[in-house]
Amino acid sequence: MENRNRQVLLKRRPTGVPTPADFEITNAPLPDPADGEVLVHGIYLSLDPYMRGRISGQRSYARPVEVGAVMEGRVVGEVARSRDQAFREGDFVLGGYGWQLYSAVSGQGLLKLDPAEAPLSTALGVLGMPGLTAYVGLDEIGKPQRGETVVISAASGAVGAVAGQLARRAGARVVGIAGGADKCRWVEAELGFEACIDHRSADLGAALDRVCPKEIDVYWENVGGAVQHAVFPRLNDFARMVMCGMVAEYNDVDPRPGPNLMSVVRKRLKIQGFIVSDQWQRFGEYRAMAAPLLKSGELKYREDMVESLERAPEAFVGLLQGRNFGKLVVRLGADPTRPA
Amino acid sequence: MENRNRQVLLKRRPTGVPTPADFEITNAPLPDPADGEVLVHGIYLSLDPYMRGRISGQRSYARPVEVGAVMEGRVVGEVARSRDQAFREGDFVLGGYGWQLYSAVSGQGLLKLDPAEAPLSTALGVLGMPGLTAYVGLDEIGKPQRGETVVISAASGAVGAVAGQLARRAGARVVGIAGGADKCRWVEAELGFEACIDHRSADLGAALDRVCPKEIDVYWENVGGAVQHAVFPRLNDFARMVMCGMVAEYNDVDPRPGPNLMSVVRKRLKIQGFIVSDQWQRFGEYRAMAAPLLKSGELKYREDMVESLERAPEAFVGLLQGRNFGKLVVRLGADPTRPA
Repeated sequence: MENRNRQVLLKRRPTGVPTPADFEITNAPLPDPADGEVLVHGIYLSLDPYMRGRISGQRSYARPVEVGAVMEGRVVGEVARSRDQAFREGDFVLGGYGWQLYSAVSGQGLLKLDPAEAPLSTALGVLGMPGLTAYVGLDEIGKPQRGETVVISAASGAVGAVAGQLARRAGARVVGIAGGADKCRWVEAELGFEACIDHRSADLGAALDRVCPKEIDVYWENVGGAVQHAVFPRLNDFARMVMCGMVAEYNDVDPRPGPNLMSVVRKRLKIQGFIVSDQWQRFGEYRAMAAPLLKSGELKYREDMVESLERAPEAFVGLLQGRNFGKLVVRLGADPTRPA
Repeated sequence: MENRNRQVLLKRRPTGVPTPADFEITNAPLPDPADGEVLVHGIYLSLDPYMRGRISGQRSYARPVEVGAVMEGRVVGEVARSRDQAFREGDFVLGGYGWQLYSAVSGQGLLKLDPAEAPLSTALGVLGMPGLTAYVGLDEIGKPQRGETVVISAASGAVGAVAGQLARRAGARVVGIAGGADKCRWVEAELGFEACIDHRSADLGAALDRVCPKEIDVYWENVGGAVQHAVFPRLNDFARMVMCGMVAEYNDVDPRPGPNLMSVVRKRLKIQGFIVSDQWQRFGEYRAMAAPLLKSGELKYREDMVESLERAPEAFVGLLQGRNFGKLVVRLGADPTRPA
């Protein structure tokens, strides 16, 4: 165990597109766990689009990260010291906090991980918050039916990949939208989507018409922007729009106009937003369903691994621009359960 | 019984705001009921905003009225001749068809009315399609809870007046939006809404802030336009937008931009449209609930009566501009159950 911590702080609130200069990487003393707390030595840090909202300072469903504070993030790590009798040194856990190598957190919020069940890093992605997001959004809002057409934006991303695979399992015809030929190939070949459209293609509307001849019954919204405007007029009667995120607009200073809502009446559309943190009580249920599928290979995933905390700021900026390919994870330390 | 019919035909599809010249009033032979049909002599004709969609020729949930055809509309009338053994001459019925004095319609689609239960004309408004609209929209989408703030646009209209009164009965704090001081006074004094805002007032947003200090949990959308844009940013977390209509935009040639949907995610909003014709199976349930309330005076209503079919076109044009005050009804003939 080192005797100092390494942290990424929010240096200033970005306006528009964040840059690595909005963050500051510093040393700090090792945190000292209080009674009931555990010192977690991070192995993996999750980077997710929602973090853009946390650094904007606007009113939202969660408190913003203060300027000068450690950036928020979920961490998988190893217990380095425990003052909670439920945990022992060497336990692997989900629930470390922040863009830093060490964190002292309450044992209450920790989930013990069994490396024999699934690779540790998956607790941040396919078996973690993004997977749960996909699960509850489909279950509560999207409700895909056999034979329906489901369109998933950011289809190769952490949430989209799970949402599309679960919709396929429900018997729907699933079409992805992703950025670039490599991602689209992977979505079709590996995830088995019916088709995947590159959103950079010249005429997104025409491409949608081609691969969705019966139009769209469920749209999983991860991106907003031009993709939203291409999908919206192609929704069928009684279609559901699962509003999970609009990452293409997170850096906007002024909000763009949305679609005219007259067709919401005419087509009886449902446009509904949700936040996964309202649904943590379903995390166990999701993991119990998804872990066996992961083990059997029926549920696929892909990680985009960033090799050190020092690179977290630029990786996060890239995430907001779609430069990652798969779940973006930062390696904080060696994973003793995996071959190097 | 006269020996000729009088009809209003759609003369041409209006672009933008309709004018009376888009319609043609003509004479026609009396229709001859076939076996199983009934000849209905109209007493009251309902004029409703949805009719704007029927004459536009755009793809919609129902077939458009063809140019040269009789304008669509629901009629309360008296059976003048019956070839359905379930009906007899002199029966009062809901289910006559169209902007015309006589119609021959299948007995299957007719509802017999008891004038002792409620005034006949109410089968077109408070106890008719508009009332059912309010009932199912609140029951299936709005779901107002005790203490929540519910905002009703077009609050003095046929749907809005019922929606607001039902929301009050559910224990919500109900605020109306209507056009002009007279309507607002009636909504407050007669319907008992907490407040009613004139949408023509200089700063609609500030007015909403004043009367909705805890912001808005349910918004009943009848109008769209500037009202929608003022309400949208004032929706609370988990608010529901009941998308019933957007009459202020029905005459638009090009759709206006809608609100940016980012807050749908952040606030977990639900924006859902519906069409009452999907819900006719609940008509009996609604009437059984509402008729006693009407009789006891707990459910209030107001009708705007137009005195002859000849004036239907101009009344309909006025309806789209909010010139009616209460449920717009055209008198087609004398009502033998009412004093003259």
